[in-house]
Amino acid sequence: MTLDPQLLETKELYGILSTAVAPRPIAFASTVDGAGRVNLSPFSYFNVFSSVPPILVFSPIRRGRDGSAKDTLNNINEIAEVTISVVNFDMVEQTSLASTEYETGVNEFDKAGFTEEASEVVRPPRVKESPVSFECTVDQVIALGDGGGAGNLVVARVVRIHLDEGMLDEDGNLDTVKLDLVARMGGSYYCRATPDNLFEIPKPLRNLGMGVDQLPHHIRNSNILTGNNLGRLGNLEKLPGGDLLKSVGEREEVQQALREGDAALHRLARRYLEQDNSLEALAVLLQGR
Amino acid sequence: MTLDPQLLETKELYGILSTAVAPRPIAFASTVDGAGRVNLSPFSYFNVFSSVPPILVFSPIRRGRDGSAKDTLNNINEIAEVTISVVNFDMVEQTSLASTEYETGVNEFDKAGFTEEASEVVRPPRVKESPVSFECTVDQVIALGDGGGAGNLVVARVVRIHLDEGMLDEDGNLDTVKLDLVARMGGSYYCRATPDNLFEIPKPLRNLGMGVDQLPHHIRNSNILTGNNLGRLGNLEKLPGGDLLKSVGEREEVQQALREGDAALHRLARRYLEQDNSLEALAVLLQGR
Repeated sequence: MTLDPQLLETKELYGILSTAVAPRPIAFASTVDGAGRVNLSPFSYFNVFSSVPPILVFSPIRRGRDGSAKDTLNNINEIAEVTISVVNFDMVEQTSLASTEYETGVNEFDKAGFTEEASEVVRPPRVKESPVSFECTVDQVIALGDGGGAGNLVVARVVRIHLDEGMLDEDGNLDTVKLDLVARMGGSYYCRATPDNLFEIPKPLRNLGMGVDQLPHHIRNSNILTGNNLGRLGNLEKLPGGDLLKSVGEREEVQQALREGDAALHRLARRYLEQDNSLEALAVLLQGR
Repeated sequence: MTLDPQLLETKELYGILSTAVAPRPIAFASTVDGAGRVNLSPFSYFNVFSSVPPILVFSPIRRGRDGSAKDTLNNINEIAEVTISVVNFDMVEQTSLASTEYETGVNEFDKAGFTEEASEVVRPPRVKESPVSFECTVDQVIALGDGGGAGNLVVARVVRIHLDEGMLDEDGNLDTVKLDLVARMGGSYYCRATPDNLFEIPKPLRNLGMGVDQLPHHIRNSNILTGNNLGRLGNLEKLPGGDLLKSVGEREEVQQALREGDAALHRLARRYLEQDNSLEALAVLLQGR
C-alpha cells in the first residue's frame, strides 16, 4: 500500500509518522522566557545526534489548528538555553500531565508536582526527579515549515551532565536496566524498557561477518530458520573448519537428526542458535544436503 | 554527580549519551552512490521531526578513530535521496549484521539477506521485509562538527510512504502492537515493544488538568501514593463534588478504611487508581485528614 503524503490529511500523516517511527525517547525540556518565567514540557520528536560535540535535537511542532508556536519555542527564541531531562517509568504520569496546554506563564513544575533543581551554567532549572539531565545552550533553531504541523529543530549543545549515582553499574557506567526509561509510541501508547523486553545482540563491528550471502542455498532457503537465525549465522566470520564439522557430525543428536532428514537438522541448529552457539549451529546445518 | 562533557573521553561521552537518550527508533537507510551502487545501514540517531512537511532526520556520525565519513553520508552528498525503512523484531539480527563496516561498494542487502524493492520516486531501493518504508529526498545535510564523533543532520523529506497492509487495525490505522518495533538502547541492548511493556496514558490535551498543586497537602505528601498516582489525580479537571464525596463516603470499604486511619485510606485510593477510577480515588482521599 503506497501513499503520497501530499494527499493525506495532516492528522492521518501525523498518525502514520508517530506510529511507525517509534519507540521515541522523551526530552523533558525546561526553558525560561525573558522575564524568567519557567516552562516545562515533554517532546518525543527528540534524539541524540552527535557525541563530539555532544548535540541533542528536539522539535516543538507548530499547533495543527492555528500554526501557533508553543511556549518552549518562544522561550528559546528569547533565551537560547534549555535543560533536557530524561523520563523513567516513575515519572511518566506526571510528565504526561506537564504536556497539558496551560496558559503562558504557568509553571508546569508546579502543575505536575516536580521539583526545580538549579542549573550550573544555564538559566532554566532541571527536573530533580529525573535520573539524567543535560544543561544545554541552543546553537540554532531550524524551522522546517511555517504552518500547522511544522517542526523546528532545536539544536542543543550539552554543557553539563547530571547523573543520579544510583543509576550507575559497578563499573561506574550508566545502567540501562536501572534507568527504567520510557518512550513514546503512536496514539496514547508508551513503551517501558524492562529486563523482560530488553535483549542484546553482539555488535558486529569487531569482526567482519561473512554475510548471509555466503551461506549455502539450502540454509538460506530454510523453512525452519528465521531471518534472525540467518542474521546470526551471517555474522560468523567464516564457515566452520573440518575438525569442528567432524566432531559435531559425530554427536548422537546430530546423527539422529541426520537420519530424520533436513527439517530435523534445521530444528536442532535452531536450538544451538538459541543457546548462542552459532558456529556449532552452522556445523550442524552443513551436515545436511 | 555533575560532569563537564569537555573533560570526558569521546568513548565515555558516547556511552552516557547513548544510554541516557533511549529507547531510540532505528532508521534502516538505503542510499546509492553516483555509480548506482547500493548501500544499506541502520542508524539510531534518528526520529521524526515534523508532520507538515513530513521530515525525518538521522545522523551518520564521523568515525571516532579517524574522523572519516560513512558510505551513507558520502552517497547522500552524491545523490541526495534515501529510503528509510523501520525495523521490527523479525528483522533485527539481520539489521545488526548490516551495520558491519563492509568495504565501500558492498551491497548490505545481499550481506544481510534482505530483498531490494524498487522505489517509485527515488533511486535507492527500500527493504521489502520492513513493515513501513519511506522514500525521501534530502533537503539539506547539516554538519555538527568535523572530527571523530561529529554528527551530520540528514534532513529527509518524505515523498512516498509504503505500508504493509497486514499492519493495519480494523479502522485502517497502523497498529502499534502488530508492528512489533525494536529500538536501540545503550551498549549492545535493544528494546522490543510488546504488549507486555506497552501501556497507555490518556492524553491530557482534551481537558485541562487542575494540576498536582491543587491537591491538598496530605495527599501530595502521601507516603503511599506514587508520583504516577499524583500525576493521574492532577489530570482531573476539578475536585469531586459534594454528591460524589457523600456517596463514596458511605461505602463500607471507605468507612472501614477511615476507622483504620489515613494509610488505609491512601491504600484504598491507590486501588481505585489502578482500576482507572481517578475521580472516586480522589473522593476517597478527601474523606481523610
